[in-house]
Amino acid sequence: MSPTRRLVLHDVLAQHARARGAELAVGDGDVLLTWSELAERVDRCAGALRAEGVGRGDRVLWLGQNSFRVLELLLGCSRLGALFCAANWRQRAGELAFVVDDLTPAVLFTQAEEVGDEVAAGLSVADHRARTIRHDADGAEGYEAWCASAPAREIDDLTEPGDALLCTYTAAFDGRPNAAMLPHRAIVAQGLLMGPWMGVSARSRYLAAGPLFHVGVWMEGFATFLAGGANVFVRRSDGEALCRAIADFGCTSGYVVGPMVDAVVAANEGGRFDLSSMRGRRGHPAYDAWVGVDDSPWGRRPGGYGQTETMGMSTFALLSSADELGTHGRPSPLVQVRVVDPDGADVPVGETGEILVRGETVMCGYWNRPELNAVRSRGGWHHTNDLGCYEVDGSFSFVAPKGRMLKSGAENIYPEEVEQALRTHPAVAEVAVIGVPDEVWVQSVKAIVVRQAAATVTEAELIEHCRARIAGYKKPRTVVFVEALPRAGWQVDYAALDAAHGGGSYPGGNNRPV
Amino acid sequence: MSPTRRLVLHDVLAQHARARGAELAVGDGDVLLTWSELAERVDRCAGALRAEGVGRGDRVLWLGQNSFRVLELLLGCSRLGALFCAANWRQRAGELAFVVDDLTPAVLFTQAEEVGDEVAAGLSVADHRARTIRHDADGAEGYEAWCASAPAREIDDLTEPGDALLCTYTAAFDGRPNAAMLPHRAIVAQGLLMGPWMGVSARSRYLAAGPLFHVGVWMEGFATFLAGGANVFVRRSDGEALCRAIADFGCTSGYVVGPMVDAVVAANEGGRFDLSSMRGRRGHPAYDAWVGVDDSPWGRRPGGYGQTETMGMSTFALLSSADELGTHGRPSPLVQVRVVDPDGADVPVGETGEILVRGETVMCGYWNRPELNAVRSRGGWHHTNDLGCYEVDGSFSFVAPKGRMLKSGAENIYPEEVEQALRTHPAVAEVAVIGVPDEVWVQSVKAIVVRQAAATVTEAELIEHCRARIAGYKKPRTVVFVEALPRAGWQVDYAALDAAHGGGSYPGGNNRPV
Repeated sequence: MSPTRRLVLHDVLAQHARARGAELAVGDGDVLLTWSELAERVDRCAGALRAEGVGRGDRVLWLGQNSFRVLELLLGCSRLGALFCAANWRQRAGELAFVVDDLTPAVLFTQAEEVGDEVAAGLSVADHRARTIRHDADGAEGYEAWCASAPAREIDDLTEPGDALLCTYTAAFDGRPNAAMLPHRAIVAQGLLMGPWMGVSARSRYLAAGPLFHVGVWMEGFATFLAGGANVFVRRSDGEALCRAIADFGCTSGYVVGPMVDAVVAANEGGRFDLSSMRGRRGHPAYDAWVGVDDSPWGRRPGGYGQTETMGMSTFALLSSADELGTHGRPSPLVQVRVVDPDGADVPVGETGEILVRGETVMCGYWNRPELNAVRSRGGWHHTNDLGCYEVDGSFSFVAPKGRMLKSGAENIYPEEVEQALRTHPAVAEVAVIGVPDEVWVQSVKAIVVRQAAATVTEAELIEHCRARIAGYKKPRTVVFVEALPRAGWQVDYAALDAAHGGGSYPGGNNRPV
Repeated sequence: MSPTRRLVLHDVLAQHARARGAELAVGDGDVLLTWSELAERVDRCAGALRAEGVGRGDRVLWLGQNSFRVLELLLGCSRLGALFCAANWRQRAGELAFVVDDLTPAVLFTQAEEVGDEVAAGLSVADHRARTIRHDADGAEGYEAWCASAPAREIDDLTEPGDALLCTYTAAFDGRPNAAMLPHRAIVAQGLLMGPWMGVSARSRYLAAGPLFHVGVWMEGFATFLAGGANVFVRRSDGEALCRAIADFGCTSGYVVGPMVDAVVAANEGGRFDLSSMRGRRGHPAYDAWVGVDDSPWGRRPGGYGQTETMGMSTFALLSSADELGTHGRPSPLVQVRVVDPDGADVPVGETGEILVRGETVMCGYWNRPELNAVRSRGGWHHTNDLGCYEVDGSFSFVAPKGRMLKSGAENIYPEEVEQALRTHPAVAEVAVIGVPDEVWVQSVKAIVVRQAAATVTEAELIEHCRARIAGYKKPRTVVFVEALPRAGWQVDYAALDAAHGGGSYPGGNNRPV
């Protein structure tokens, strides 16, 4: 081993245990772990995973909601050079089964509370069988006993910074999601870059309130971890749980966005929780009065262009000034960003093309997708499948996904996934899904359906059909029946559908190419 | 090439040329270069170096003062995977010759103005012969003509982030300096980390006023380069030149320390230069009134523990609070820092041991020193040759160099180098060099000399003897003659010499082990 070895995630844990062992690393309800305690638990967790046969390149899957054990298992996988994935627990059985069969984990962790039935249903239809541990069970079959019973063992420290660590499913443009594999170098670099911008320090206590299957939630979480601050977890973003966590742990910042703010406001009626440690302004008068202003550079100008495949942001609004033309700031110093035409040539300034990214924060590729990876990384550049342009002043604008995508809250919805679910209904002949503007959720999902001749299915029946097959936030809010879908050549004419049925508020604006 | 390729320095140049081509990248007197112009010049410079046969692992040596061409050649070497060294131009002929023979460069660049005679004398006594280009010559033999005449050529992009790029001589504990080889990853990581802390942005204009053979001058220079700001060069830190550069380029920060502040104050009598763009407070009332306060985290709490071998800081005061015990803050998130006993075991908190560092910013080793490198990197950790300790609150204190070292201004002086120079005088039988406190320069050099029997050499003669052999700042300010050196066993007792002759103000305090 060379002294020039790059940092991997458990190196950071070791250093914090050395220099701030007695300080808080993790909070989660009644659980408080110092850096020393976390390091010791991760040692045992890695030993227990090793005893199950987990080694370099193997996968570990989490089928539960947020928990401090997610961070613990991630660090355990770091020790072993293994990959860790927290699945989207809002998915339905069939969707969960797809993830299990695609990822083929060596060990998987389940949760009984709230999601147990759906997880059990998913596992029962999955082909792949894996060693399964229930994380929220007490006694001999639970996570704690499993960790404690593993024999102590030396673990060879073979993890390399380029090794994939965090798998996150995304990009279901063709109806099937793909797991972006993010390596240590991407996680460490992005966290180190954003930490100072976010005002993160060893005194920070970050409320990782959003779902941990989102890179956006991890961005500040990793920055906080790297700086030696504490990560605070809540099982899901319930208003009362958020208020309690902020008040109990003195959280200084958090992933509290959109409807989560409303949930906090509703739960804190009368101001019975002290939220004054928190920084952030979210546009709700009551919330804004309870919390302090986030005066960090990122707090003043959050946003930019990013995707899961690049560990979040590749451009930052805070690198720009307010009077610049670009809507998405300027490129991160960690990457190069090009904009090219279909032949791969740079397009002139002001013209739209596909966004390419190369550098520190780019993923290793999608798990188990060699053909897609060859296409997406052709010529040595990550092809984002997104459209953008450089403006004449050198600033940057994201325009739209190349493929069709909808947005509900912070969740991406790929119409093809919803259309696939609807097509499995025998009464559906043809279907197209669009997004219509929604004041609270950005967009709501609308399905335009052509029924089979003589079929009589209703709107409510089709929505119910989807509810059983895809995550709740993906199901159509409304269904309209038409005689035929408009077409431009062979392709469904989505622009005409938007015009006819009130579509709009797409990510990147409505003028996206289709 | 993979999209996950790590950043190398010329990748950053390419991205800035793409996104901010028309903005200022470099200023130096009458020379102003935009990012596009700099990128084009670096292309030509790399082509010209390639035409001279420079390739991966070859060395390029700069024997001149500060110039924008130093950055240009560094980036040219980046393209080729070559190493670049800016020698200490304050050295004497013999010292320069040592560097030439040690580094055996393929190409070297000389300067006639101010340093030409000493450089010529050095080259005449060196054994190694290299292609030599005078950077400040006009016409056919000069740098510009050399660059322009090189044939255009495609350059294979083979540089890896772990490749050594910047060589800097340091650590002359045994009397001979060693060139620390810093790789792209160390330069990029440190610059990215410190940029936000230093308030560096694309609007920054950094006055790289200190000598470019110092890592300390590059720290903010690289941070500025990475952020897309401009680096401004002055040949040397002359007061008038500093004032002119600040006023002409609107410098926003700079390496202006200690006596350089006095030089600015003297040159700006009557306030004829507008220095108001500048940020920084240096403790001189006039200077502080002319410039703005540096309110960045680094500006409020600069310092920490660092060395050339780790691209500057490995611990940062700004990661600490004022009431902590440690004098040097807390470890950088880029590295791990341990403190060990002579057997390599971690010492208890509060006890002094050798500082070990591992991680992103650690050098590749010293050029051409395989045995020293094996010792200094044993067990996979960089052994700093410095002593320090962790305090009970987890904060960190640097104690002293393990070897003896003096400080004059920002320059390290290794007593062994001065003692070696004095030993070459025929009248000197024995010699020991100590540092005595100096209000302006931290320390001044004092030599304690035992004359050969019947020899009659004077203090002035010995100082003159040194002036011809070592850099001016290293020569003794005073010489005292004694009958014998105090010894503890066989070793010279430097503590007794300090006590007898007023020694003190050593880096890390006077209670250093000897």
